[in-house]
Amino acid sequence: MKKILILATGGTISSIKNENGLVPENKKEILKYINQDEFDFELTIKDILLLDSSNIQPEEWKLIATEVFSHIDEYDAIIITHGTDTMAYTSSMLSFMLQNPNIPIIFTGSQLPISHPLTDAISNLKTAFTMALSNLNGIFLAFDRKIYLGCRAVKVRTSGFNAFESINYDCIAYIDSKGLNINYHLLPQKNNYLPSLNISINTDVFLLKLTPTTPPKIIDSLIKLGIRGLIIEAFGIGGIQHIRRDFVKFIEEAINNNITVVMCSQCLYEKADFTVYEVGMKVLQKGIIEALDMTSEACVTKLMWALGQSNNPNKIRSIFF
Amino acid sequence: MKKILILATGGTISSIKNENGLVPENKKEILKYINQDEFDFELTIKDILLLDSSNIQPEEWKLIATEVFSHIDEYDAIIITHGTDTMAYTSSMLSFMLQNPNIPIIFTGSQLPISHPLTDAISNLKTAFTMALSNLNGIFLAFDRKIYLGCRAVKVRTSGFNAFESINYDCIAYIDSKGLNINYHLLPQKNNYLPSLNISINTDVFLLKLTPTTPPKIIDSLIKLGIRGLIIEAFGIGGIQHIRRDFVKFIEEAINNNITVVMCSQCLYEKADFTVYEVGMKVLQKGIIEALDMTSEACVTKLMWALGQSNNPNKIRSIFF
Repeated sequence: MKKILILATGGTISSIKNENGLVPENKKEILKYINQDEFDFELTIKDILLLDSSNIQPEEWKLIATEVFSHIDEYDAIIITHGTDTMAYTSSMLSFMLQNPNIPIIFTGSQLPISHPLTDAISNLKTAFTMALSNLNGIFLAFDRKIYLGCRAVKVRTSGFNAFESINYDCIAYIDSKGLNINYHLLPQKNNYLPSLNISINTDVFLLKLTPTTPPKIIDSLIKLGIRGLIIEAFGIGGIQHIRRDFVKFIEEAINNNITVVMCSQCLYEKADFTVYEVGMKVLQKGIIEALDMTSEACVTKLMWALGQSNNPNKIRSIFF
Repeated sequence: MKKILILATGGTISSIKNENGLVPENKKEILKYINQDEFDFELTIKDILLLDSSNIQPEEWKLIATEVFSHIDEYDAIIITHGTDTMAYTSSMLSFMLQNPNIPIIFTGSQLPISHPLTDAISNLKTAFTMALSNLNGIFLAFDRKIYLGCRAVKVRTSGFNAFESINYDCIAYIDSKGLNINYHLLPQKNNYLPSLNISINTDVFLLKLTPTTPPKIIDSLIKLGIRGLIIEAFGIGGIQHIRRDFVKFIEEAINNNITVVMCSQCLYEKADFTVYEVGMKVLQKGIIEALDMTSEACVTKLMWALGQSNNPNKIRSIFF
């Protein structure tokens, strides 16, 4: 019989309502609503955190990755229950911290507490269980009967049960009346490396979403704050202002201060391409890294991970790609 | 015969390719590809700017609004051709600067230059012309055979012809084989006020998109930079970190420094609601303004406009809503 482990971190899924709003409860809350008779696998639940995901930060990413890794040989799959707010950041980060997983590692959660009569928690857990029994290795996110790659998911809806989308990449699998339908061609390529854990990261990374009045001097402030990595969400396919508010000059200054600058688009969908317009070519020549079609969540976490591996700009660039 | 004015500002629609990439050309480039024989209206084109829209900033918003207003009595509709990158910022800002328009004012542009064999420019211009003849008053954005409210549009795709979406509000109208189909119930309510122009804005507004490691001290840096308005894109329905990285404390500090703080969600779709979680209630009590279901583009421009009208926090709050 297969063995599945749930690592519980809190989040709406296990929350109960008190006078201050929703407060996360521990694994008992989840166990209360799971009907173990429906399973043909052995389920273990372990509490590792008890947090709203808006408070899940690098310290917790390391703990979650280490917990998963320490149990990877004992179980056939590991599910992490997690608040939805920052789940895409955590699932992206785990995709870098935990390489070559040899089991399915699946994030899930819900938009309503598991105790709520209209909850999506049961359906999301069943989606995760189905994926857990699939023998497909990787870091995934299960939500609304779909399975996404952990580093492609973005929370795009505040309250809908279809809270997540897989950005610039189809979902890995989905559930319908035929069961789990797998897009095999989208799965990460198998290799023969052993699973590895590497939780060295540098969290001094800042995400700057441009608006037409963003003052370029903000980059001076970020240099003073000691950031090592800067991700800029540019306009459209790769636009940045350079008349009056001259970002080209300040981006160059950031790079001269040994800051790694990654540029992506503030458009949710499709790929950025800084070679299309003249100003994009200029910042490419200054030495920015293009994020291409990555999500901002994946950019932020991958840059932290790359900066954790090296101080050398060329090494960081080659790790980022 | 109806009279339509096009105000040309540059953008991809009128660009031609040279050795440095795409460079905006003037109105001649647009006129070359418009077949005037197809029209039953009188068309005038006027160049007012010649810029990529990544360089369209407050100085240009004022100029565009003033130009539109100065011609509002002479024409039956005004179309503004504009780059797509920041078109949603400009169309949002014009919705505040130019109130009670008594004609259709329509932004349009394209993802490919009008000279390109696969261009979407002709179709987008024809959509704008059709809307221009509709007698519907308001600030609109015409793209991919759809008409959006100017303050609801967001560029969500870097290269697709369906570059824009109308966020948390259906499109005002769309074109199919039956012609222009209008969702009358979604139109702004008519009133008897005269059109008015008010271009007083305060551009010292910063957009902060949170990530799990955003240092709250950035708010100190923004205070030093002299910002007057801060828009925070929180997680999900209204999450912000408050353990270790305590944004509640720094948001309070910003408010104590007479900065107006508006909070929205980094989720593209659906409404933020800071009353759902305890931390949201805390920042509400400190005095933040909820953006509810507004786009970030509309938040940024509306806050600049509100700050341009008053220094009094209560007045600013009542203008914002």
